[in-house]
Amino acid sequence: MGENHGIRWVGFDGDDTLWRSEDYYRIAEQEFERIIGQYIDLADATTLQHLLAVERRNLKIFGYGVKGMTLSMIEAAIELTEERISARDLRGVVEIGRATLQHPVELLPGIREAVERIAATHDIVLITKGDLFHQEAKIAESGLADLFHRIEVVSEKDAQTYARVVRELDVAARQFLMIGNSLRSDIEPVLEIGGWGVHVPYHITWAHEAEHGLDGAAERLLSVASAVELPAAVAAIDASAATAPVPI
Amino acid sequence: MGENHGIRWVGFDGDDTLWRSEDYYRIAEQEFERIIGQYIDLADATTLQHLLAVERRNLKIFGYGVKGMTLSMIEAAIELTEERISARDLRGVVEIGRATLQHPVELLPGIREAVERIAATHDIVLITKGDLFHQEAKIAESGLADLFHRIEVVSEKDAQTYARVVRELDVAARQFLMIGNSLRSDIEPVLEIGGWGVHVPYHITWAHEAEHGLDGAAERLLSVASAVELPAAVAAIDASAATAPVPI
Repeated sequence: MGENHGIRWVGFDGDDTLWRSEDYYRIAEQEFERIIGQYIDLADATTLQHLLAVERRNLKIFGYGVKGMTLSMIEAAIELTEERISARDLRGVVEIGRATLQHPVELLPGIREAVERIAATHDIVLITKGDLFHQEAKIAESGLADLFHRIEVVSEKDAQTYARVVRELDVAARQFLMIGNSLRSDIEPVLEIGGWGVHVPYHITWAHEAEHGLDGAAERLLSVASAVELPAAVAAIDASAATAPVPI
Repeated sequence: MGENHGIRWVGFDGDDTLWRSEDYYRIAEQEFERIIGQYIDLADATTLQHLLAVERRNLKIFGYGVKGMTLSMIEAAIELTEERISARDLRGVVEIGRATLQHPVELLPGIREAVERIAATHDIVLITKGDLFHQEAKIAESGLADLFHRIEVVSEKDAQTYARVVRELDVAARQFLMIGNSLRSDIEPVLEIGGWGVHVPYHITWAHEAEHGLDGAAERLLSVASAVELPAAVAAIDASAATAPVPI
C-alpha cells in the first residue's frame, strides 16, 4: 500500500478524536468540587486552579492519565481542606478515579466510517498518551482496534516521540500525517518534524492542551469541523505530499 | 546482524533483572504497615494480605505499577482502619508512592557488562511492564537506554503480548530469547509461544509473580545464578537454536 501516495502512514489521536474523553474529566472535576464543597466555601476558593496546579507539579513524576489525576486529586483535597477531609470522603475521591477509568467509550459521530475509509487506502496507526493500561482498555472497547495496523501508547507527545514513532514505522516525516483534536499534542510537534496535520477540534479542551505555539495559517495543516470531512482532508494532503519537493 | 545465529533478538526484563526494584516495594510495604500500625494491632491483623487482595482486585482496572499500588494502598488503609485514618496519614501513603516512583536505579552486579557483551552480537530489546512513565524514567536513569535497539513497555506479560512483540520485530518465536527474573512473566509465556528463556532469579519475589506453571526441566530454558553467566547462556542457546529442527 502507498506506492502512489505522498502519505505512507496516517496517525490518529485517541481521546477526543476517536471517542469522548474530556467530558468525563469535567464530570470528575464536578464530583471533586462537590466533595470539597462540604469543607470549604467554593465561592472563596480556587479549587480547580489548585487541582490543575497540583497536577502540573506532579506531571514529572506521575506522567499523564487517570491514576495520576486521582493521586493529584487526593493531594489537592487534603491541601484544600487543610487535612480536615475524612477518610470516607477520600475514598470518594478514589471512586472518582475508578469511575473515570471505567467511563463508556462512545465513538464520536462519523469516526468509524472515517477510520474505515482512510484505512482502506493508507496504513493507519493510533498514537495515544496516558495510562498504558487505560488506553489499551479503551482501544479494545472502542471496536476500532482491528482497523489499526499499529497502536502506540506514548508517555509524551512531543517532537522527539513522533520522530521515534516515524523512525520505527520506517518512513520519512514528510510521508506521515497526524489527525487529532489537540494543536499542542497532535499537530504542532508533527509539523515541527516535517510531517502533516489535520486538526479536528473537540468541543472542550483541557487547559494544559490549550497552550501551543501554532497559528492557524501554518503550512502542512488543514482544519476540519468533524470526522465526516477527514477522508477528503487526507486525500487533499496526500496529493500535496506526493508533489511536494523533497527537502535536501 | 544475526546471519549465523539461531537467535535473532534477545529480550531483557527490566525490574529485578537489570536494576533493583522489589526491595523498594518491600520498603513501601514496611512504611505502609508503620502508618496502619497507629490504628490497628498489627499482630491481630493481616495487613499485607489485605493489601495484596486489594491490589489483585484492582489489577483489572489499574493494571501494574506504582500509581496503581498507591491507590490500592489508600483503599486498603481506609478499609483496614474502618475509615479512622487521618487525612495527614493518607497523605503519608501518597508519599510512599511518590518515594517509590523516585527510587534510585541501581544496576544489578555485572549487568552492564553482560548487556554490552550480548548487544555486541545480537539485537536486544527491553521488555518491561508497569507504569509507562515510570518505566521510561528508570530506563533513562539506568544509563542502559542507548545499548538497547528497541524498548517495549507493555501492560501485561502474557503469550499474546510476547507474540505481538515478536511479530513487530519481524522474527519467528524460535529466534527469540527472553532473559528475566520471573518465571511467570518473563519465561513461561515466551516458552509457550515457542521461544527460549534464560531465568536469572532475584533474591526476593512478589507473591503474584511466584505463581507459575513451569518446572525447572522445561526445554528451551536455562537458569543462571547471576548476570555474569548471561553471555555464556545466550551463546549456548544460540548454538542450540541454530541447529534445532524448524517446526512444520
